[in-house]
Amino acid sequence: MIEEKLESIGIRLSDPPQPIGSYVPILQSGNLIFVSGQIPLIGRTLPEKYKGKVSNQVSINTSIEASKQCAINALEHIKKLLGSLDTISKFVKITGYVNSDSSFKDHPKVINGASDFLLEVFGEKARHTRVAVGVNSLPLDSVVEIDVLCEVD
Amino acid sequence: MIEEKLESIGIRLSDPPQPIGSYVPILQSGNLIFVSGQIPLIGRTLPEKYKGKVSNQVSINTSIEASKQCAINALEHIKKLLGSLDTISKFVKITGYVNSDSSFKDHPKVINGASDFLLEVFGEKARHTRVAVGVNSLPLDSVVEIDVLCEVD
Amino acid sequence: MIEEKLESIGIRLSDPPQPIGSYVPILQSGNLIFVSGQIPLIGRTLPEKYKGKVSNQVSINTSIEASKQCAINALEHIKKLLGSLDTISKFVKITGYVNSDSSFKDHPKVINGASDFLLEVFGEKARHTRVAVGVNSLPLDSVVEIDVLCEVD
Repeated sequence: MIEEKLESIGIRLSDPPQPIGSYVPILQSGNLIFVSGQIPLIGRTLPEKYKGKVSNQVSINTSIEASKQCAINALEHIKKLLGSLDTISKFVKITGYVNSDSSFKDHPKVINGASDFLLEVFGEKARHTRVAVGVNSLPLDSVVEIDVLCEVD
Repeated sequence: MIEEKLESIGIRLSDPPQPIGSYVPILQSGNLIFVSGQIPLIGRTLPEKYKGKVSNQVSINTSIEASKQCAINALEHIKKLLGSLDTISKFVKITGYVNSDSSFKDHPKVINGASDFLLEVFGEKARHTRVAVGVNSLPLDSVVEIDVLCEVD
Repeated sequence: MIEEKLESIGIRLSDPPQPIGSYVPILQSGNLIFVSGQIPLIGRTLPEKYKGKVSNQVSINTSIEASKQCAINALEHIKKLLGSLDTISKFVKITGYVNSDSSFKDHPKVINGASDFLLEVFGEKARHTRVAVGVNSLPLDSVVEIDVLCEVD
C-alpha cells in the first residue's frame, strides 16, 4: 500500500545505492531498523547540484530536494531488507546533517525535505523525532546527509 | 519526587517549546524515550545571549548555562509524555553539539552543563553515556543543541 | 576467542581511558550497549599526531590509524563492562565525526580505520551500519571521534 502511495506521487523505488565504505547499508536489532547515513545519490552518482554548502553554493530549495532524495534512498534500503514498506510500524528518529556555511541558521527547513516527504507517504507512522545540525563537510561534498531509525512490529 | 527535587533547586517545569519543523518533540519505542534535539529556548524564544559560537561570541560559562537549559526543555517534554519524571529508569545517552569556532577544544565543559544538572536532579539514574562534538552552525544560531535518550521500566 | 584474535594481530587490551566529563564510558539498555564517544587516547594521553584537522594538519593515513585507536578504546570499555568480548552478538552502528577542513570529502576513508579493524577482528558480527560526517572541532582537538553501538544476546 505504501508503494502504491509512492507511485501515486511519481516515485518508483529502484535498487538502493551501495555503501561507500566498510559497512552495511541497513541492519535490524530487536524491533529497530538502523539505516546508514544517506546522501542524495541518484543511482550510483551524486548529482553536481547536490554538492557544496547551503546557502552560498546550494540554494535552500535544492537542499530541501536533496534531503527528500536521502529519504527515498533510505526507503529503498528498508524495502530491500524487509521486502515491504508496510512492515514499518513507525519512524523513530531522523538525524539530519547539513553541509553549511558557518552563518547558516535554517537547518530545519532543509531537513523538512525528508520529514515532509515521509509524512506525505506514511502519515501518522512518520511522526518521528529529529535532530538537525550544521557541519562543515560531508562525504563526496554532499549538501546533506540523513540518518534514519525506524521500528517494525 | 523528582519534581520536588527540581523545585528545591528553583526549577519549575512549564509547557515545553514546540518543534520548529515537521517532526514531534518526543516519542517512545520499546523502553526507549527519544527526545528531539533541544536548543536553549526559554518559552518560545531563543535568548540573544544563547546565540553564536563558543568561545568568541558566547563565553564558556554562558554556553554551560545554555546546555543546562536544553536539558530542562528535554525534561519538560518527558514530563508531558510520561506524566511524571519518576517513570524514567535511566538516562541512556546524551549527544551534545556545540556551535563553535574551529579552534575550540573544550566541548566537554559545555555539555557538562546538561550532564551535571541531570546528575544533580536524578542521581545515579542520570549516569549516561555521552558524545560531544563541535559543529559550525546550528538552528537559529543556537550555541548548543542536546539530544537526549532515556529509558523507562 | 576474540582476544586471542586481537593478540594474534598484536593488540593487547589494557584499562580503558576515563571519561573527560560528567558521564560514564559505557552502559547497557536492553540488549544494546552504548559506548560514549571515543577519541584516540593512548592511555590517558591524546598523542600530538592525532590532534588537528584532516587533511591539512593530519594526513589521511594518520587519521585512519586514529580511527582504529578509537575502536580499540571502545573494545576496552566493552570488555570491562561485559567481562568478555565474545558476548557481543553484533555491532549495530558506528557514527564517525572527522575533524576536518571545510573542503574535505573523504570521511569514509577515515572511518574505515575503525570499521576495517572491527571486521578483521569480529568478522560477520562486525557488519555495522554507519554515519560519517565532518565537524569543525572536537574535544582536545582530536582528529576523530567514534561513537559505537553494539548488541549482546
